Amino acid sequence: MRDAESYAREFRGRFLEELKKFMRFPSISSQPKHAKDIMKCAYWLADHMRQIGLKKTRVIATKRHPLVYGEWRHAPGKPTILIYGHFDVQPVDPLEAWKSPPFDPQVRGEHLYGRGSCDDKGQLFLHLKAVEALLKTDGKLPVNVRCLFEGEEEIGSPNLPAFLSRNANELRSDAAVVSDTRMLGPDRPAIHYAERGALSAEIEVAGPAHDLHSGNFGGMVHNPLEALCEMMAKLHDSEGKVAIPGFYDRVLPVSEKERKYMKRTGPNDAEIIRDASVKEAWGESKFSLYERTTLRPALTINGIVGGYQGTGSKAVIPSHAVAKLNFRLVSAQKPKEIDQLFRRYVERITPPTVKSMVRSEPGAEPVLIHPGQLAIRAAAKAYRRVFGVAPVFLRSGGTIPIVSSFQRLLGVPTVLMGFALPDARLHAPNENLHLPTFERGISTSVWFLRFVADSDLRRSTGNLGRHYDH
Amino acid sequence: MRDAESYAREFRGRFLEELKKFMRFPSISSQPKHAKDIMKCAYWLADHMRQIGLKKTRVIATKRHPLVYGEWRHAPGKPTILIYGHFDVQPVDPLEAWKSPPFDPQVRGEHLYGRGSCDDKGQLFLHLKAVEALLKTDGKLPVNVRCLFEGEEEIGSPNLPAFLSRNANELRSDAAVVSDTRMLGPDRPAIHYAERGALSAEIEVAGPAHDLHSGNFGGMVHNPLEALCEMMAKLHDSEGKVAIPGFYDRVLPVSEKERKYMKRTGPNDAEIIRDASVKEAWGESKFSLYERTTLRPALTINGIVGGYQGTGSKAVIPSHAVAKLNFRLVSAQKPKEIDQLFRRYVERITPPTVKSMVRSEPGAEPVLIHPGQLAIRAAAKAYRRVFGVAPVFLRSGGTIPIVSSFQRLLGVPTVLMGFALPDARLHAPNENLHLPTFERGISTSVWFLRFVADSDLRRSTGNLGRHYDH
Repeated sequence: MRDAESYAREFRGRFLEELKKFMRFPSISSQPKHAKDIMKCAYWLADHMRQIGLKKTRVIATKRHPLVYGEWRHAPGKPTILIYGHFDVQPVDPLEAWKSPPFDPQVRGEHLYGRGSCDDKGQLFLHLKAVEALLKTDGKLPVNVRCLFEGEEEIGSPNLPAFLSRNANELRSDAAVVSDTRMLGPDRPAIHYAERGALSAEIEVAGPAHDLHSGNFGGMVHNPLEALCEMMAKLHDSEGKVAIPGFYDRVLPVSEKERKYMKRTGPNDAEIIRDASVKEAWGESKFSLYERTTLRPALTINGIVGGYQGTGSKAVIPSHAVAKLNFRLVSAQKPKEIDQLFRRYVERITPPTVKSMVRSEPGAEPVLIHPGQLAIRAAAKAYRRVFGVAPVFLRSGGTIPIVSSFQRLLGVPTVLMGFALPDARLHAPNENLHLPTFERGISTSVWFLRFVADSDLRRSTGNLGRHYDH
Repeated sequence: MRDAESYAREFRGRFLEELKKFMRFPSISSQPKHAKDIMKCAYWLADHMRQIGLKKTRVIATKRHPLVYGEWRHAPGKPTILIYGHFDVQPVDPLEAWKSPPFDPQVRGEHLYGRGSCDDKGQLFLHLKAVEALLKTDGKLPVNVRCLFEGEEEIGSPNLPAFLSRNANELRSDAAVVSDTRMLGPDRPAIHYAERGALSAEIEVAGPAHDLHSGNFGGMVHNPLEALCEMMAKLHDSEGKVAIPGFYDRVLPVSEKERKYMKRTGPNDAEIIRDASVKEAWGESKFSLYERTTLRPALTINGIVGGYQGTGSKAVIPSHAVAKLNFRLVSAQKPKEIDQLFRRYVERITPPTVKSMVRSEPGAEPVLIHPGQLAIRAAAKAYRRVFGVAPVFLRSGGTIPIVSSFQRLLGVPTVLMGFALPDARLHAPNENLHLPTFERGISTSVWFLRFVADSDLRRSTGNLGRHYDH
């Protein structure tokens, strides 16, 4: 009888074709025109889960984009693992920067290119392939499994928390596992123990009631685009700190012990500068780049829309302009409070010659997960088995909105077991999945489910300090 | 026998339908995809000119968009008038702000709505209808006429000056007339004696080599959009003056006499604020709004393109950002010099963390036309005849690039005889033409051609001061 890992090796070609099918749905959750694509993608996914042997598979409607659920619960006395992932993806523009179309996945060298290849369709899929490999070879799973896949992660999971609280009993589990984070390199596996929170907001600046001819009116009207630029130039002080009063009030100091562990195990400045493809770093000089992007909060402009956007020129003063902003929050910062501080600041820096308006999304809280949890130990053991080295424990700069809800609403810890390489171009053109790492990811998931089967997860102990010594 | 004016009244319905046809060509000169539409529009126009009785009508190719020419030269001993206009139009975005589609002209109330209705298809067309009315009733024109219509005005007339210098002899005329400027109101006709120059430029700011995830990298990289905003916030000083060193060096003082005339005859601050549809003015407080927009130079941001432009949010740090800028120049400012000063300033204010690049178009020089010219007196007489009041002499904030070339290359003065009302929404959504003014414009053109026939244009004299006393 074959074992799960050799099954996965044997069918790697089919697995790749299936993943490509999964990626062809343009499931962009932030764009209303793709709502149907997300729905189709959800039905394809539920159908696929049924085919590989999961039970009670179904598409669950929410106010906006659906969830997909499936389970296998024939391991009495064993822990229940909640596998979470998301099948929605980020927008794809600028389209012209893609070497191959974002929704026509293509393999070049060792990488599969396309939107969602890594974030998060590919990483979601490796768990399904581990489940399939185990079911087709052992005929059973070593643990009970619930799969919960979401279509709204990239818009901040607005409907999932309510679903979790309504169904907390039915979803009872002992740990959650999420693969939506990064490794340090192909041979440097990592488990994340912290995520930044997030808050997205838009500022609209309105000037004249209609667009004006810049010849006839240039010189007497405060251009909303220029007013917006003046405001954006006040987001940070000269040292790269966010200039909003009170913004750092709930950013707690981090222990010297953790900073030392981070310095020893995390990416160094040169690596981060290389991954960012910039010549020079920027920001708070008292912190390393790893610290600036993980244990310090951040504020970025994601886009500005205003005036003429086409080729060539147009002599116009636009009536309004919009900036799209994104906060990343840490330690005890709360999205709601930050939103209020931000609105107060925008009011203060809006010139009297224009009007401003802020729109914001609900946001996600920062998360810290104790790495002493037994489920995390099982994951570490699985990584060691497959990659031959122990994973490091990392802070992430990103946000998986639902992790804090798992902790708060289901009372379970989350294992952040990521397989994205640093140059995976998440959210950017030419997003890619390193196929050898994808295959090792399937094996790691197989071994995780085996190792975690022997853990008495409810007796989980351990302290953060110990794990920094890994 | 009918006279020209009653002919025009009789066929006003057909004239309107013809103008609508003319406007249906989406002849946007700055957008390469519309090159064919401009060509089709040119052929339609040449054909129409032939139908109304002009001779030697033809479409003349240039390096980019064509010219259209036609003439009638059977008035020996009489002056030759060069009628100039342009059949290219500005881009139409934001499309959603139009109440009816920009290229599907529609009449609502007394106005015809659509791109080009006023700038400049409608104003060009009123001269053709005047020529038609005279030819169909009198069987001849009172003067010799050359019509030269352009498809590149909105991109700065890049090819017309070379055409003029190559054909200066064949185009010999005594005065040019251009209708592409504004009146102060339906009963307040105006002749413009000054135009600002223009220069369009783009700044591109480049940061990381590719877009970055704003969670993973936010806090360590200088966002090109934010860097661009910081630079844009330095375009003006706190008093609304352009902050580029040397920018005002060639802005000469204007006589108190002219400022007094402007104060008496031009639009007042309240009127300009109303036309601009803003609550509050902005800019150089030592100058009236009429002065700020005509005898003072200006710098405006016409558009910013960078990062995510769609609905909703996208957590991205864009690799680059672009701002589109437009200068308006006065008195002795030269586009080339301003371009150099600007490039030097951009270099100085570019943060070391990003790179910047400037692209610019050739630009147009400011123009001052002596209002004592006999052709201008004939125009003033025509306005008085049709509108019942004398026109005021105005400075314009806009730019008709070719007027300085007429002066320099053909040695002829230009009569800027405009019929656009202040709320015509030139360059903006819902551009419109006031139809009663269009019809008076036809009559004014008829009377202008009659009155100018009796002027010995080569003996033209007069001084600016006298005309301020009108």
